[in-house]
Amino acid sequence: MFRFKITIEYDGTNYVGWQSQVNGPSIQQAIENAIKQLTGERVILFGAGRTDAGVHALGQVAHFDLEKKFQINNIRDGLNQYLKPQPIAILEVKKVKEDFHARFSAKLRSYEYIITNRPSSLAIDKQKSWGVFKKIDVKKMILESKFFLGKNNLEAFRSASCQAKSSIKTIDKIQIIKKVDKIYIKVSAKSFLHSQVRIMVGTLAEIGKGNLTKSVKKIIKEKKRTQAGITAPACGLYLTKVKY
Amino acid sequence: MFRFKITIEYDGTNYVGWQSQVNGPSIQQAIENAIKQLTGERVILFGAGRTDAGVHALGQVAHFDLEKKFQINNIRDGLNQYLKPQPIAILEVKKVKEDFHARFSAKLRSYEYIITNRPSSLAIDKQKSWGVFKKIDVKKMILESKFFLGKNNLEAFRSASCQAKSSIKTIDKIQIIKKVDKIYIKVSAKSFLHSQVRIMVGTLAEIGKGNLTKSVKKIIKEKKRTQAGITAPACGLYLTKVKY
Repeated sequence: MFRFKITIEYDGTNYVGWQSQVNGPSIQQAIENAIKQLTGERVILFGAGRTDAGVHALGQVAHFDLEKKFQINNIRDGLNQYLKPQPIAILEVKKVKEDFHARFSAKLRSYEYIITNRPSSLAIDKQKSWGVFKKIDVKKMILESKFFLGKNNLEAFRSASCQAKSSIKTIDKIQIIKKVDKIYIKVSAKSFLHSQVRIMVGTLAEIGKGNLTKSVKKIIKEKKRTQAGITAPACGLYLTKVKY
Repeated sequence: MFRFKITIEYDGTNYVGWQSQVNGPSIQQAIENAIKQLTGERVILFGAGRTDAGVHALGQVAHFDLEKKFQINNIRDGLNQYLKPQPIAILEVKKVKEDFHARFSAKLRSYEYIITNRPSSLAIDKQKSWGVFKKIDVKKMILESKFFLGKNNLEAFRSASCQAKSSIKTIDKIQIIKKVDKIYIKVSAKSFLHSQVRIMVGTLAEIGKGNLTKSVKKIIKEKKRTQAGITAPACGLYLTKVKY
């Protein structure tokens, strides 16, 4: 048996998310189908992060096992061929040891969220960014974002459907950069709660717009989802990197 | 009569180009329709650059005249409302003097071309960038690009359908930047021949790939379209700015 690690880029717009579901096309299913076409083998693809419907990836990681031997670049090129014309690209294929697990071996996951802050609707970045019309005070966002750093109980920042036993999470990095009309929010942690990044971004955006006056520090302390901001739309979110 | 200058961003993928044509939807027609819906007036929209089918814009400029008085921000917001859900956004509206002409008053037009140079197909940037699989030597591209600077007869760099009387053009700026797997080619000039930027990019890419060994200097001198490279696909090209 041979285990392969693949790095994947995708436009999540027209997918139900990473994970296979009965109600529509998933990224996982699309790649499993391409693997079947290329190798003749039916496999289960294990992903590092189960991105939601509409969420994109620049560096999702997954692993799968094959019985037969394949050259890594032949897997990459073959899968890309069978994935056409879908907006899913296999960036890299590596042979890994049998104890490697895309989900459980991951040490750090990085997400980036892109806001377009301008009075006009989106054109080029439609479905690739969250269009916020009201002026956002980015300095305020940056100041408040610091409270997310380190180990915290992020009960207020998870969706009702989140199934994680513990809501205690450690955020290693949060960086906010403004460039022309774009605001980039980069967040890294070993793991995340369901919708955590989107609720963090929604909260910071509401604070930056002046709609929410409560500090992130206080919202974390109160542990109530209702006190945090909205869940920012999926289309602005990118899984950018997974470290092992 | 009131003359308005508008700055426009659009995703040209599903359009026949800027200019109205019988064979499909154009950006010009879409905006003229929105103006009609908002103001009740039928106008002709004059654009600074007639981008081809599939070419995008981050800062196309156009002008039109209205009989009735309108607030500039009401025009911006109203047009954006009527343009929905099309990937066309009015970024800015300004009142200008009656002698302003989006096409004839333009002093400098800037284009940017984006190549994604990697062995994998495109996902996130599908239709927004040209995917080139074979490794491009960017240093070679940069060196050769310098020959385009200044005043030259660019007969070799225009399409057969180009109707310009003279093929002598002055390029004020050409800049090539590589960032991860992206190559950005920025070109500025008062005006361009038909398909000029795309043939310039196609030629530089062929040189960078080692497929074309003739220097840009020599191709310019020989004035033959057949000696230059391919016309790079429309999807990688953006009209970024027009200066007056």
